[in-house]
Amino acid sequence: MKFLNEDFLLKGSTAKKLYHEYAEKMPIIDYHCHVNPADIANDKKYSSITDVWLGGDHYKWRLLRAGGIPESEITGARGKDPFMLFKNFASVLPKAIGNPVYHWSYLELKRYFGIEKPVNLDTAREIYDECNKKLSGANMGARGLIEQSNVKVICTTDDPIDDLAFHKQISEDTAFNVKVLPAFRPDKAMNLKAAGFNGYIGQLENASGIKIDGYKGLIMAIDKRIDFFNNMGCRASDHALEGCIFEPSTGTELNEIFLKALNGGDITKLEENKYHSAILLHLGKRYHELGWVMQIHFGCMRNLNSTMFDKLGPDTGFDSMNGNGSPQNLAFLLDALNKDGQLPRMVLYSLNPADSEIIASIAACFMADAGCPGKIQLGAAWWFNDSKSGMEKQLLDYANSTLLGNFVGMLTDSRSFLSYTRHEYFRRILCNFIGGLVDNGEYPDDFDTLGKIVEDICYYNTARFFGFDV
Amino acid sequence: MKFLNEDFLLKGSTAKKLYHEYAEKMPIIDYHCHVNPADIANDKKYSSITDVWLGGDHYKWRLLRAGGIPESEITGARGKDPFMLFKNFASVLPKAIGNPVYHWSYLELKRYFGIEKPVNLDTAREIYDECNKKLSGANMGARGLIEQSNVKVICTTDDPIDDLAFHKQISEDTAFNVKVLPAFRPDKAMNLKAAGFNGYIGQLENASGIKIDGYKGLIMAIDKRIDFFNNMGCRASDHALEGCIFEPSTGTELNEIFLKALNGGDITKLEENKYHSAILLHLGKRYHELGWVMQIHFGCMRNLNSTMFDKLGPDTGFDSMNGNGSPQNLAFLLDALNKDGQLPRMVLYSLNPADSEIIASIAACFMADAGCPGKIQLGAAWWFNDSKSGMEKQLLDYANSTLLGNFVGMLTDSRSFLSYTRHEYFRRILCNFIGGLVDNGEYPDDFDTLGKIVEDICYYNTARFFGFDV
Amino acid sequence: MKFLNEDFLLKGSTAKKLYHEYAEKMPIIDYHCHVNPADIANDKKYSSITDVWLGGDHYKWRLLRAGGIPESEITGARGKDPFMLFKNFASVLPKAIGNPVYHWSYLELKRYFGIEKPVNLDTAREIYDECNKKLSGANMGARGLIEQSNVKVICTTDDPIDDLAFHKQISEDTAFNVKVLPAFRPDKAMNLKAAGFNGYIGQLENASGIKIDGYKGLIMAIDKRIDFFNNMGCRASDHALEGCIFEPSTGTELNEIFLKALNGGDITKLEENKYHSAILLHLGKRYHELGWVMQIHFGCMRNLNSTMFDKLGPDTGFDSMNGNGSPQNLAFLLDALNKDGQLPRMVLYSLNPADSEIIASIAACFMADAGCPGKIQLGAAWWFNDSKSGMEKQLLDYANSTLLGNFVGMLTDSRSFLSYTRHEYFRRILCNFIGGLVDNGEYPDDFDTLGKIVEDICYYNTARFFGFDV
Repeated sequence: MKFLNEDFLLKGSTAKKLYHEYAEKMPIIDYHCHVNPADIANDKKYSSITDVWLGGDHYKWRLLRAGGIPESEITGARGKDPFMLFKNFASVLPKAIGNPVYHWSYLELKRYFGIEKPVNLDTAREIYDECNKKLSGANMGARGLIEQSNVKVICTTDDPIDDLAFHKQISEDTAFNVKVLPAFRPDKAMNLKAAGFNGYIGQLENASGIKIDGYKGLIMAIDKRIDFFNNMGCRASDHALEGCIFEPSTGTELNEIFLKALNGGDITKLEENKYHSAILLHLGKRYHELGWVMQIHFGCMRNLNSTMFDKLGPDTGFDSMNGNGSPQNLAFLLDALNKDGQLPRMVLYSLNPADSEIIASIAACFMADAGCPGKIQLGAAWWFNDSKSGMEKQLLDYANSTLLGNFVGMLTDSRSFLSYTRHEYFRRILCNFIGGLVDNGEYPDDFDTLGKIVEDICYYNTARFFGFDV
Repeated sequence: MKFLNEDFLLKGSTAKKLYHEYAEKMPIIDYHCHVNPADIANDKKYSSITDVWLGGDHYKWRLLRAGGIPESEITGARGKDPFMLFKNFASVLPKAIGNPVYHWSYLELKRYFGIEKPVNLDTAREIYDECNKKLSGANMGARGLIEQSNVKVICTTDDPIDDLAFHKQISEDTAFNVKVLPAFRPDKAMNLKAAGFNGYIGQLENASGIKIDGYKGLIMAIDKRIDFFNNMGCRASDHALEGCIFEPSTGTELNEIFLKALNGGDITKLEENKYHSAILLHLGKRYHELGWVMQIHFGCMRNLNSTMFDKLGPDTGFDSMNGNGSPQNLAFLLDALNKDGQLPRMVLYSLNPADSEIIASIAACFMADAGCPGKIQLGAAWWFNDSKSGMEKQLLDYANSTLLGNFVGMLTDSRSFLSYTRHEYFRRILCNFIGGLVDNGEYPDDFDTLGKIVEDICYYNTARFFGFDV
Repeated sequence: MKFLNEDFLLKGSTAKKLYHEYAEKMPIIDYHCHVNPADIANDKKYSSITDVWLGGDHYKWRLLRAGGIPESEITGARGKDPFMLFKNFASVLPKAIGNPVYHWSYLELKRYFGIEKPVNLDTAREIYDECNKKLSGANMGARGLIEQSNVKVICTTDDPIDDLAFHKQISEDTAFNVKVLPAFRPDKAMNLKAAGFNGYIGQLENASGIKIDGYKGLIMAIDKRIDFFNNMGCRASDHALEGCIFEPSTGTELNEIFLKALNGGDITKLEENKYHSAILLHLGKRYHELGWVMQIHFGCMRNLNSTMFDKLGPDTGFDSMNGNGSPQNLAFLLDALNKDGQLPRMVLYSLNPADSEIIASIAACFMADAGCPGKIQLGAAWWFNDSKSGMEKQLLDYANSTLLGNFVGMLTDSRSFLSYTRHEYFRRILCNFIGGLVDNGEYPDDFDTLGKIVEDICYYNTARFFGFDV
């Protein structure tokens, strides 16, 4: 099969038909990403292909570093010498055989810039110039890239203290019809051991207008922000946990722990676990009331390289999987919420692929009388798992454990407006997975049913599960 | 390939030949299952396809729940409205693409009811009526289903206090020639922290006629029941462990722990571990003396959904994998038994597929001077791993670590008399696995050897390993 | 495909071309093995095929044991009855379908003895005689086997106290042009809880000429041995860890711990962890200064079968994977070294395949400003993972996480001079892996680039990474 042709990743005839007749046409709902809403509000323009393609993508930086390129010619070259960074990436890309970033990079260049040439040192200049020319044309700002990609909904990731001014601006702008909704990510209110915790609580006081002089005040302030987010169209929250825990506690204990943290006292692991468990329990119930989806991400270690953290800060390519996620402990949180009849819809993700089957088997225990098909979801292959084999494993684990037809599908989890091609990548892999089952005699070749399953996973399930009005 | 045709799951010509000329003809030994011996003794008849196909199968209930069907229309509809339950299952089944239950369900309908139609809402009524008609005919009770399936031996799962009256009745019934043997599962004697422990020990006293006033008495009582089971033809035991542990202890300690538990005292984790280790050590030796096979299952969390547990009790579809099984600790138990020259034949199963390679590598350390080929077995893919990919992984892990030709093969682990089709499912996957190696040039196409390997794994190894007189 | 023909394991045309036109011709650098340098120095000759093929290969012994062969006819038959051992192996080999040892055994017989017949009880005598005849001919001693295999560099595994006399003898022997270099493996200096620790430290004193009366002396002595090894051409070290830990400590603490161990005091787990961490930290820095590669192996449990350990000692086939390797803790050691600008090149291996993705994701965090492409390597599939599927998983995990084009490739890790065929095995799997990506449309069919990637992984990367002068 020729590289990157129209049947890219589609092996059999069933896969091809499913992709081209069903998946390809579906709009995109990107229910989890990290793009900056200001860029959409202001319809950000890009100074060069380096700016849009390599300026913020730490997946690509990791490859550059592995290729032996000094940091001064990676993050250090942004702005200063954009062609040097571009050329460096072109020089390492051929060695990335089998890497998902290889595929994403080519898809991005092909879909948005029409480039089909091999990317290497010999072609770098030519491709660089061609892309920059294209970039200076119409419809190549943030909004243009979104619209070209047939995106209907974007959920950004937002702190409870955020005023969501850009979301408001976007929603009021009749020239732009894509829904850009906030998602609620209260990690900073969870991290009671972080240096800036006390200061953050002050900001939360200001944002909410609620005096936070104890755990009760904290919860009232958070609830107020949830209401505000809800009024702004929010349908989802997100929580980043190191590992899964569930530790019961009393209200008095929680108040003591919270006040101790505010005053800079030493918080034990047990105290931290109690605090986290209580917050998650409270929030889960609130999300349930509002019909929000609760996303939980875990199994990650962050900022491992302290030298580079000091230079570049977080989210710059120095994170890893954690073998310590204890996915089995999810069961206790889910049971506690369920016992009170307040288990929200959930999407569960671990960065450690070995956790995936365990998560799926727990999820299946909390579907009874759920009021919603597929209420607890094994999330799409996340971050380092976003490879072809990683996505195939996630689909396999999902299918083996429950009804794949319920799956809410792909998200970009990205900071880049070029990464909607990851939905294409996913859809090709999905159609190839399902097509393979059919060609292998494991499912009938009934295209009415198959086409519906594919369209549901690409779009309709997501719309229904999150309750997007599309 | 057409769905569910005679070459279902058989990709190449070698696989087809191995299945149709060797595997397909072999009788079944179902050495581990949970069918009720009373049903065989009384040749239970079924009131409807719902009764036999959906009445007790919690794998199917999980799919129904994931499909958004309320519990009142699943377990609540049994008996009351059998067609509603059937129809509900027909409505969710098409979404179960890639799920093993999809395959099992179709195999069950095809083999026992001759149904080959797609199962969905449109066909539900028609299939329901056709199946019920078939069910009212001859040879469709528990015994008929067993005999149709070419089963030679069934091992049920039985508590030490069981009087095995039904096993006796079956063995004395000359009209039925399938061996139905007990298997010894003393979990209740292990669970010294369970609420009913004291009461259970009383029942064990009665069953054994041995006064249990301490740890010694307990062991004597258990041994007496083992002798009884052995006289009744038992060849296997089964143990369900949460995780693997091995904690040495003294006899005095054990007595204190046991008495404390009897009197309702608080048992620490360490005490529990000592007690479990001592019992497993003792029993392992007894099994070795009698030539029994010791089965150990671990890596499971049970009854996670307390709301549903309160309504439906155990074994109703609310269990999951546990990432905490600590398979490496198996080594200490095996070494302790082996040191005394009393290591029994074993089959080791974890519900967590990530444990499989570790188990296999430990098993291979305890094969020296074993007096039996393949003495310590990596067990067949268990429960949530019973999918096509799960079985393939188990075969791969087995083959990578030792002599696949020694494998004792498949079991149903089931409560249903329709599930002998899981042996067919396994055999097709086995032949496809082996055929794939041959077609891929990884093993010579010598059918004398290949056929023998397949027949051994399907039947002869099991007969020899357990010592069934067939 | 025919078993073991010239296209063994090569599925598509791209794989075939890559293997036959690129990989096959590359010389071998075996940068990690356990052959005895004395055997090379003395050009050891073999008394029989049993001697060279089965005399020291505990992979094969495990299969024999699993086949039910008593130990007296395995290790007990060496020397005494070589044909019995050979015949026994021939009898179990057909059952090893899918096992890597099946493939290695056939490759060894084919490449060094020209045997292509099936190995079984019927052919055992004939093959035995034919091999022995071949073995008595020219070029079939240790040196001949190495030279036939196109090996350029061999790194043995050596204790710091070793005088490396055989290495010296080999390097001075102009009749033999293969580099045989030492590798530094200071495990005994790490194992402060071992019975012989005190005695070992005495030997280290003697070897180094440094008085070891405290932790400082120990470090000075080790450093002196490192200098000696370096002068002898050493380019690599190796460390076997049970699991990964990192525990900071003070110099005073370390001295106390070391002296306590010397005096036979009880060392706590925490003390052991501090000691191990400090030594690894120190050594990592020294390796960095010298440009050595630091290899870390973990995830192994050794000598599990105490009965057999008492009879046969270590490295006789009684080791297993450990699920407890805690790969995430590698990050702390790497960060500590990196913070001081003294992170050496590393190759990281776990015996537990579930650790592989975690290791790869940590490695990618420590490539910035590394001064070397692929500075932290996910090591080749190790020991029980050395199967076709295990190697494929390692390649996949490597490719998914970083630039596969940087991979330093295969090693034998072996005690046998026949095992250079494992490089052939690896290269076929590598070419099949890469060829599969191309045939599947996941990479362009540009053979200039592909051929370079293959040659780099087979040879050039290794030469560059370790700094071998070839």
